[in-house]
Amino acid sequence: MNLAIDASSGEPLLESLRAGRVGLVALCGGTGKCGKCRVQVVSGQVSELTSVEEDGLSPEELDEGFRLACQCRALGDLTIDIPASSLEMTQRLQLEGEGGSVALEPSVTAVPVQMSAPHSEDLIADADRLENALRAAGCSPASTPRGLLTELSSDLRELGWEGRAVLQDGRIVTFLPVDASMAGLAVDLGTTKMAGYLIDLDSGKSLAKTGMMNPQVEYGDDVLSRIAFANEDSAGRRHLQRTVVDGISELVEALCRDAGIERDQIVDAVVVGNTAMHHLFAGIAVRQLGLVPYVPAVGASLAFASDEIGLSLAPGAQIYMPPNIAGFVGADHVAMLLATQAHKAEGTTMALDIGTNTEITLAVDGRLLACSCASGPAFEGAHIRDGMRAAPGAVERVSIWDGEVHLETIEGQPPVGICGSGILDAVAGMFRHGIIDRSGRFREDKLESEVTDPFFPLVESSVAGRGRPLGLTLQDVREIQLAKGAIRAGIEILLREANITFGELDEVIVAGAFGTYLGIDSAVSIGMFPPLASDKFRQVGNAAGMGAVRLLLSESERAEAERIRKSIEYVELTVHPLFTKVFAHALRFGEYLGP
Amino acid sequence: MNLAIDASSGEPLLESLRAGRVGLVALCGGTGKCGKCRVQVVSGQVSELTSVEEDGLSPEELDEGFRLACQCRALGDLTIDIPASSLEMTQRLQLEGEGGSVALEPSVTAVPVQMSAPHSEDLIADADRLENALRAAGCSPASTPRGLLTELSSDLRELGWEGRAVLQDGRIVTFLPVDASMAGLAVDLGTTKMAGYLIDLDSGKSLAKTGMMNPQVEYGDDVLSRIAFANEDSAGRRHLQRTVVDGISELVEALCRDAGIERDQIVDAVVVGNTAMHHLFAGIAVRQLGLVPYVPAVGASLAFASDEIGLSLAPGAQIYMPPNIAGFVGADHVAMLLATQAHKAEGTTMALDIGTNTEITLAVDGRLLACSCASGPAFEGAHIRDGMRAAPGAVERVSIWDGEVHLETIEGQPPVGICGSGILDAVAGMFRHGIIDRSGRFREDKLESEVTDPFFPLVESSVAGRGRPLGLTLQDVREIQLAKGAIRAGIEILLREANITFGELDEVIVAGAFGTYLGIDSAVSIGMFPPLASDKFRQVGNAAGMGAVRLLLSESERAEAERIRKSIEYVELTVHPLFTKVFAHALRFGEYLGP
Repeated sequence: MNLAIDASSGEPLLESLRAGRVGLVALCGGTGKCGKCRVQVVSGQVSELTSVEEDGLSPEELDEGFRLACQCRALGDLTIDIPASSLEMTQRLQLEGEGGSVALEPSVTAVPVQMSAPHSEDLIADADRLENALRAAGCSPASTPRGLLTELSSDLRELGWEGRAVLQDGRIVTFLPVDASMAGLAVDLGTTKMAGYLIDLDSGKSLAKTGMMNPQVEYGDDVLSRIAFANEDSAGRRHLQRTVVDGISELVEALCRDAGIERDQIVDAVVVGNTAMHHLFAGIAVRQLGLVPYVPAVGASLAFASDEIGLSLAPGAQIYMPPNIAGFVGADHVAMLLATQAHKAEGTTMALDIGTNTEITLAVDGRLLACSCASGPAFEGAHIRDGMRAAPGAVERVSIWDGEVHLETIEGQPPVGICGSGILDAVAGMFRHGIIDRSGRFREDKLESEVTDPFFPLVESSVAGRGRPLGLTLQDVREIQLAKGAIRAGIEILLREANITFGELDEVIVAGAFGTYLGIDSAVSIGMFPPLASDKFRQVGNAAGMGAVRLLLSESERAEAERIRKSIEYVELTVHPLFTKVFAHALRFGEYLGP
Repeated sequence: MNLAIDASSGEPLLESLRAGRVGLVALCGGTGKCGKCRVQVVSGQVSELTSVEEDGLSPEELDEGFRLACQCRALGDLTIDIPASSLEMTQRLQLEGEGGSVALEPSVTAVPVQMSAPHSEDLIADADRLENALRAAGCSPASTPRGLLTELSSDLRELGWEGRAVLQDGRIVTFLPVDASMAGLAVDLGTTKMAGYLIDLDSGKSLAKTGMMNPQVEYGDDVLSRIAFANEDSAGRRHLQRTVVDGISELVEALCRDAGIERDQIVDAVVVGNTAMHHLFAGIAVRQLGLVPYVPAVGASLAFASDEIGLSLAPGAQIYMPPNIAGFVGADHVAMLLATQAHKAEGTTMALDIGTNTEITLAVDGRLLACSCASGPAFEGAHIRDGMRAAPGAVERVSIWDGEVHLETIEGQPPVGICGSGILDAVAGMFRHGIIDRSGRFREDKLESEVTDPFFPLVESSVAGRGRPLGLTLQDVREIQLAKGAIRAGIEILLREANITFGELDEVIVAGAFGTYLGIDSAVSIGMFPPLASDKFRQVGNAAGMGAVRLLLSESERAEAERIRKSIEYVELTVHPLFTKVFAHALRFGEYLGP
């Protein structure tokens, strides 16, 4: 890629590149903490090294001219190389998932109507005329919302007083041309990624799907840094909302282009996300989400006019957001349960959505128990020295045999970093081969002599194309230990609360992008998951997105979501009397030998 | 007044003055048509006279250096005099009116609630906690709107989980401090002026009232020029909406300051206006209002979240707008009927709201008949050579006796122009004294010799402080003739439709600012009103504003408004078989001798 970017403004290269539409990874929001926005200065004058860069880059990298784009400024014409690992553009998105099938029963219905035009003997107002026509067709519309009225008079005249009136709960949503289909939008709004689905609500068929990064990533990679940004002042929260609404608007644009439909054919929408994404999208205060005891502003499902938050769909279209269970068990988890039908399973079922926060629900004997584990962002590649998101060139599979390390990278590209599943495999391999022990310590005799700090190399520096080899440090192993310990502790506490053992589990459902790609055997061997036969695990892909689609297709699913919220028993781990002990045991690699 | 204004930009003086916060009268929206923005250039270089100015200013005015601010540009430092008649700032507003009394029965109720704070054993979401507390208090809130959720979590914590929850139709509107009263806002949104009322909804008492110009005046003085501006492109309509919402926001600011309350104590609002003002405020398309057969987009009453249109009140506050009857019989007329109770009168009652458009309702034998007359802006001082709005220095009373003209001006200021009631008096006096005949022609023998064009002087040029005397031209008389003819034709057609004569009228109610100040005897003597005894007329002031207050105070009034809409029979004058004939007769001054 060879681009000319204007960097004359004296701002950090990160900003100039962004303005030139080159997005770099900046997990920390451009503060220099994550060290991911490495660029290599080939020629030209740049600002002096900052202390942040001296800490964040290795001596070899500094020698080779690597800089952090969030710190470095151009002092004149400049040529830089951007390693693939620093580019944010090409992240793999998980759109597909298991969603089962659901009967088409959307909350909107289209009624064909035909009216006579007003004339001097018939001066009924336009909205009243439409309502009368609907009444004549056997429907009783209760109201025409202001949002629809804004353009209704023009639309009726342009369409010659004939078309399809779309109704929802007695409200007229919009007036479509005779031959236009009703479309619905489902969005899985993740902290990092967003997946969008466009569905034909007349037929239930999928029209288009696509994904992109959540543009809020610019303001911090994880939920807590977003909450902190939103809390700075009221403008911060509004800005985050604006950012994500604009992002979804782009997503809608792309979906409509793919499907060949107009935005104003989208008559209904469902957005699911964790509680922080839910609140920030709806413009709701998040301060209490970041403070003990971490409660959401709202539990019940929400429905509001899309134009209230500035998302342009059909004029009277509403956005439905399913209920939140607890501060860190959000609407996306409810959607995942709907998609996998875990909550209705006949046997004993556990469903996990692994991310920076991992939500777990255990369905047993008609009870639903849920908890949330602070598993951290290690599996997203953050806080891992050579970690990266699942983009081309990321090491996604690692196996060690015959004393050698074998790798697979995404799209077979030369390795530029390691993503979550690769990190998990690597740690599992290191543990199996005794390179680390149960406590995570590196066994001295297994270390290569050339490094002083404990380090396990996966890729030689020459192959990695950077100043040092790719591999895992002791600190990286510690991060994985914390993540897997948190998840296993959550599993154990739920089993205890239900008074069962892991052997009684009939099925373990693993959802989410990382959950789809992770090696179950690796997860079992380090003790993140209990040692069940591999056929007891089901990896279901983006089930939250599929759940959002179900909520779009069927009103019964919305009622079901409300039932889940009311029946689920939330277990708060941080105050659970056994949590500290269980967590300490769960931190150890291998077999869990807890209290 | 001595102000330094930056006029170096080369734009017309009108714009520079506006930017310097000096508002000039520009009834036509700055196109040069109305000729009201006269300024006198004392010294300095200005642009050449335009043909618009040559047409719009008299030779005397041109000699004295008068220019139209919308045409004239500064070419350097400039000193100008602005006659009082050109200043827009000091218009008299009619706030008071007859509103009768109404039982306090607002659509909002406040429920005192107290909650315990969430803790690790009690992690219910904030909105659910509030809803539970309301349920415990015997209320069943159906929903918490998104608008309220945005700040609810912060508010609950700041107020220590104790306060007054305000409910409306099962919706939680807001959460107020324990000792804060609920306030309501009523606005009469006129084409020219806006009147605002702040009411304590706990006691029903008035807290404050104030008025200001409708800032949309800048984009045209009358309804049709606003519609034309809105139709130019979609940005035009949005801009007009923004302008009036900002204006009402200023009004709210002033009201809150006067009353010593916070904006977010305003938990309910009522806005009334004619259909064009109604649509433009709510952001609804107006094109069909300006095209035959002139139908409104919506007849039924509207209720929408105030934040949908960017008016900041209590977070979940709604704006209620009463129903529209027809294209030119709007929600303000319904409000006027409610305030005067004309629709419930025991006898035969006629109620008129005189303005650029005059709405008339006739209540007879349980029927309600309504029509709209295109009376034009003459009574607002537009299209009248020396006309002006009712501001200090406007001639508001004219009587002719002993061969002399006697004048009263608003606030006793030196005369600078003539407002509606003065014009009406003057024309009536001219007719009574035979200066004009029944057809409106000037009788030659009554004319002063010094003028060539027919002209009746009221004020000598030296007193008027301008290059020519103040008075009425033949053209002015024609304008009044058209206005009074339209109104009388409406009255006559309604009487005919009801099959009664004017003698059967028990009461004639005259509403609106002009209606409050007009001389009934003058209106009768020129034949604008039928010749009834003066005690049959009741001048009720700003009844639309009072009606808005009633709609705020009582839910029954809202039901009553809907009943009026459903029962009223609208008579479209323009297609009425007798209209042309009746109008032709009604144009003549004096006794109406129609078909």
